[in-house]
Order: sequence, then structure tokens, then C-alpha cells
Amino acid sequence: MKKLLLALLTPSLLAADPLPSWNDTAPKKAITAFVEKVTQEGSPDFVPPAERIATFDNDGCLWSEQPMYFQAFFIFDRIKALAPQHPEWKEKEPFASVLKGDLKSALAGGEKALVGMLMATHSGLTTEEFEKAVTDWITTAKHPKTGKLFTEMVYQPMLELLAYLRANGFKTFIVSGGGIEFMRPWTERVYGIPPEQVVGSSVGLKYELRDGTPVIMKTPELVHNDDKEGKPVGIQRHIGRRPIAAFGNSDGDFQMLEWTTRGKGPRLGMIIHHTDAEREFAYDRESHIGKLDRGLNEAPARGWTVVSMKDDWKAIYPKSLAD
Amino acid sequence: MKKLLLALLTPSLLAADPLPSWNDTAPKKAITAFVEKVTQEGSPDFVPPAERIATFDNDGCLWSEQPMYFQAFFIFDRIKALAPQHPEWKEKEPFASVLKGDLKSALAGGEKALVGMLMATHSGLTTEEFEKAVTDWITTAKHPKTGKLFTEMVYQPMLELLAYLRANGFKTFIVSGGGIEFMRPWTERVYGIPPEQVVGSSVGLKYELRDGTPVIMKTPELVHNDDKEGKPVGIQRHIGRRPIAAFGNSDGDFQMLEWTTRGKGPRLGMIIHHTDAEREFAYDRESHIGKLDRGLNEAPARGWTVVSMKDDWKAIYPKSLAD
Repeated sequence: MKKLLLALLTPSLLAADPLPSWNDTAPKKAITAFVEKVTQEGSPDFVPPAERIATFDNDGCLWSEQPMYFQAFFIFDRIKALAPQHPEWKEKEPFASVLKGDLKSALAGGEKALVGMLMATHSGLTTEEFEKAVTDWITTAKHPKTGKLFTEMVYQPMLELLAYLRANGFKTFIVSGGGIEFMRPWTERVYGIPPEQVVGSSVGLKYELRDGTPVIMKTPELVHNDDKEGKPVGIQRHIGRRPIAAFGNSDGDFQMLEWTTRGKGPRLGMIIHHTDAEREFAYDRESHIGKLDRGLNEAPARGWTVVSMKDDWKAIYPKSLAD
Repeated sequence: MKKLLLALLTPSLLAADPLPSWNDTAPKKAITAFVEKVTQEGSPDFVPPAERIATFDNDGCLWSEQPMYFQAFFIFDRIKALAPQHPEWKEKEPFASVLKGDLKSALAGGEKALVGMLMATHSGLTTEEFEKAVTDWITTAKHPKTGKLFTEMVYQPMLELLAYLRANGFKTFIVSGGGIEFMRPWTERVYGIPPEQVVGSSVGLKYELRDGTPVIMKTPELVHNDDKEGKPVGIQRHIGRRPIAAFGNSDGDFQMLEWTTRGKGPRLGMIIHHTDAEREFAYDRESHIGKLDRGLNEAPARGWTVVSMKDDWKAIYPKSLAD
């Protein structure tokens, strides 16, 4: 009877498929079954709206991450832009390689080299100056392979999932290894996620007066590395509640999925598996970026749903922007 | 015409005074004028709801803070509760003084001694164990002078202000020097502010498996001191947007007020001045807690409104709980 009433009252809402880019395979069923369960008042699995926290990794989960993290393109573009103020970079690796356009050599130093370049390009300026630099870049820079804006390489099925969860009273958060201030300027426009719901890696911040004007300077220390064990810590620091649903794609998300799904009551853990070499990229156990190995091994025993982009998604990128 | 329509549609909302515990003096007028200005679509001062961020100090701004910060009572009670596991505390200051009930000696070491006691009592356990300890304490411990629960010593006018701002599309945050995990377990129930909108001082966190169960341990480092220059930093870290309204009561809130009110567009900065020795406590320039000196001096030139609790507030504590 209650269902009938609801159907009469909100026919358009119930009639439309909230996840049209998802095939009717197991992952879509797992999502809708979970959401119906936790939102049904009176059910033993009901979760009050305030506790409906869902966390999403960003790179490889909400947007692509190949051939390298998109933030790395930003770092390289910033190195080029800042080079006139840093004549010493012409002789200094990995900056010299970036300036020569030799990205392979620039990245040869692995994560440590990348963090060094990040510090050099993401600090020594105010948060407002940095926000402007990100905004300018994100609205103009193009992906070298697809020629799209990076924000056009977000996953349409995940946009639908974010909207579906929010329509069901969830609060959606990003919990990413990417820089918190690199994401915040555009996540609201692109994902509907406001800055205060973005958790990420962060550098030092210092409040000071510059010529009498208050500013917050970005300083070159890595204050929080929001990856692996750092993700549950970032969640606790920023949200202060354990999520009931978590979405990732790499072993960097393992602890976030573990922390989320080992809580009491209904939980949803989901891994986006990059299986679509034609429409996106195919990689997992051996990848230098977004490595997914332990997660694939342990997903079945832990009750985590693995989403095959090739088999479970009708579309990858937003139709209105792509193709 | 639009106003008339609104009046017809929502007569009860418009008729009721949203701030009944505020006298019709300057501060109340400053608040309502500000809210009307930023919410009026089409006005040059209109602020989109997403940017309506308001931040509140907690101690001395949302609840009392005399004769000492309420969290200090919690620390002392935890020292007493944990004493059997720490026989060495009988000989070790400031713990020995706490155990003898000599709080004056215990506090003689100032903030440094307090932080030492905080570390000893707020770390070495999981976030969930700590949350339970806070919840148990906050629902039972009584203030030594008033005999009330500490959560009954919240300010009725500020509860009305929080609700009024939220009804007008604001997102309300706590930005306090108090411990973030000391506040989160009860701010939603008491203030309507969920854990993810609480910013405070914080200790280290470490994710680990304990007997196979994932936990987040609290570790004894002060990771963020959310006071003075630390407040704009905490705001940037957690919210990622500059507030348009900020409420404080001591010089520890000075930089938060400065950061907020020096932004572009309409801004509201407000200082709660403890002037009511009869109904609450009277203190300012010379107080060892909640010292307000520079703020009083500079408020007029900076356009900050000073609220006299004695003159501007009809009630201090909630009526249904107090008196």
C-alpha cells in the first residue's frame, strides 16, 4: 500500500532508471538493492540519512588516470609556466626532462620525484592564487590522447551513481590520493561535490599578513598522504564517521574499502576494474598507476563487488561531451 | 508583489521571530540585515547558498567556558578513571594534583601542562573507544557551580542563530580550539552540527589491524592546534572556502574573524562579550580563559559587532533545561 502511494505520488521519479548507463548486471543490482535496503524506514537495515556517508576515490574511479595521473599533467604544465622564474631547472632533474618534453625520464624517479615536483609547483603561493591556477588549467588543458578536457573524461555511470545516492539522502565525499586543493576548484561543478566534501593529500598551510592583507600560504611539506592507510585516517579527520559505502579502483583504496565494509550493518564496497581497452584503458595487477592486485584477489571473500567497465557500463564518458 | 506572495505562502515562517532570545538591539539587527541582504536574489549582495558558510567558535561562544574549559573537566575525570592503570601518576605532576582534587595546582603549569594531560588521556585508544568515553561523560558529568549537564550550558540565543542561518541556506561549522573528537559525538544532537562540520584541534591518527579488526588509534602528537592563526588554516583544510560570517568571543578567534571579514562582498563578524556576571560570567581583557583584549580594541574599526550578553540577550541557557 505504501509502495502504491509512493508510485502515485512520484511516478516520474520511480519510472525513470536512475542508472541508465549501467547494464542490468550484478553491480547495478548490488547498488540498487543496497540503497533500497538502507532507505526503507522500519527495516532492520535502515540507516538514518545523517549516517549515509559514501566515499569515492577520484583517479581511476570518477575520472581516468592514464597514461598518468591528470594532476601530473598539471604539474608539468606548471613547471613549464614557472620555468622563467627558475633558470636552475634547466640543469636540474627531473625539471630539466619536463622542460625538454621528455616525460618518461621525468617520471623515472617514481613517486618521490613526482612529490618533489609537486612541492616545487604547489607551494610558495597563496591558496587563492593556486585555486586560480587550477581553474585556468582545468578549463583549457587537453588530454594528449583523447584531445578532451580532463573534466570530460569523467565516468558517466559514476556521475549517475553520485546523483542517485544523493537523491537517496547520501552525502557523497571524494577521498583521493590527489591534492585536496587541486580537486576542490572544480568538483562541485563536475561531480556536484562541494569543497568541504573533498578529502585529499595536502601540503602545509600558513596564515599570514602580506602587505597587510590576510592570506594562506601553501608551504612545501606533505602534511597528509591520502593513500592506503591514509584514507581511513583522512576519512576520520574530515568526516568523523565511518562510511557505509566506498568506491575505489586500486590497491590504494584497499584500506578505505576495508574500513568501510568492516563496520556494523549494511555496507557496500565496490571496485571499478579497468577492463575496457577500446573505450578507455585496460590495466590492473601490473600497472604502474592504479595497480589493482590484492583488491582483485580478496574482493570475493570480502563481499566487494567488482565492476567491469567493459561488461557493466553502457557508456564511459558523458555523451553530451564525448563522441 | 513578490513579498506579498511570500507572505501568503509562508505566513507562519515570516510571522515568527526567529531570534526570540535576542533583544531588539544592534546585534540582532546586524544579523537579520546581513541575512536578508545575502539571501535576496537579484541583489548585488546576493550570495549563492553553497557559499553561505558560517563558522562558530565553541568555548565561550556556543557554550560556557568558566571556571575552565569544559574539556578540562573531562580530562580530569579521565585521569581519575585511568589512574588505576597508571600508578606512577600518584607521584607525577600535574597528575598527582588532579588525583588529590587540587585543580589549581594541576593547572599551574598553564597550557603546556594541559596539553600534556590531554595527550595522556586522549591517545592510546581507538577513535571508537574515545567516542564512547566522551558520550558517557557528556551525558552524565555536571558543572561544579551550576549543577547542570555541560550541554545544558549552551547559549539559547546562539542555538536560535544557528537554526536561523541554516533556515536561510547557510552551512554552519564549529571552528574551535577544543579537541575535534571531543566535540563530534554530541554537536549534532546539541547544535544540529554534524561531525563533518566540526573543525578542532587534533592529535595523530593511525589506521591498523588489531587482532584482525581495523581500528584507528589516537596517537600522542598534536597535529593541529586550531587556535589563533590555526583557525583560518583549519577552515581552509576542512571547508576549503572562506566563510562569509564568523562568530567568536576571544582573541583566539581574532584571525578567524579577520580572515572572514576581509573577504570580498558582504561579511559578518561578531564577538560575544561576556558581560553578565549574574546570569553567566563576566570577563574579558584580564581573563586566563577566553581573554578578549585586541578584539575589543579593534572591533569598531574592523566593523565587527560586539554582543553584550547582559544587554543583548534575553536568556542565556535554554529555558526548557535551565531554571
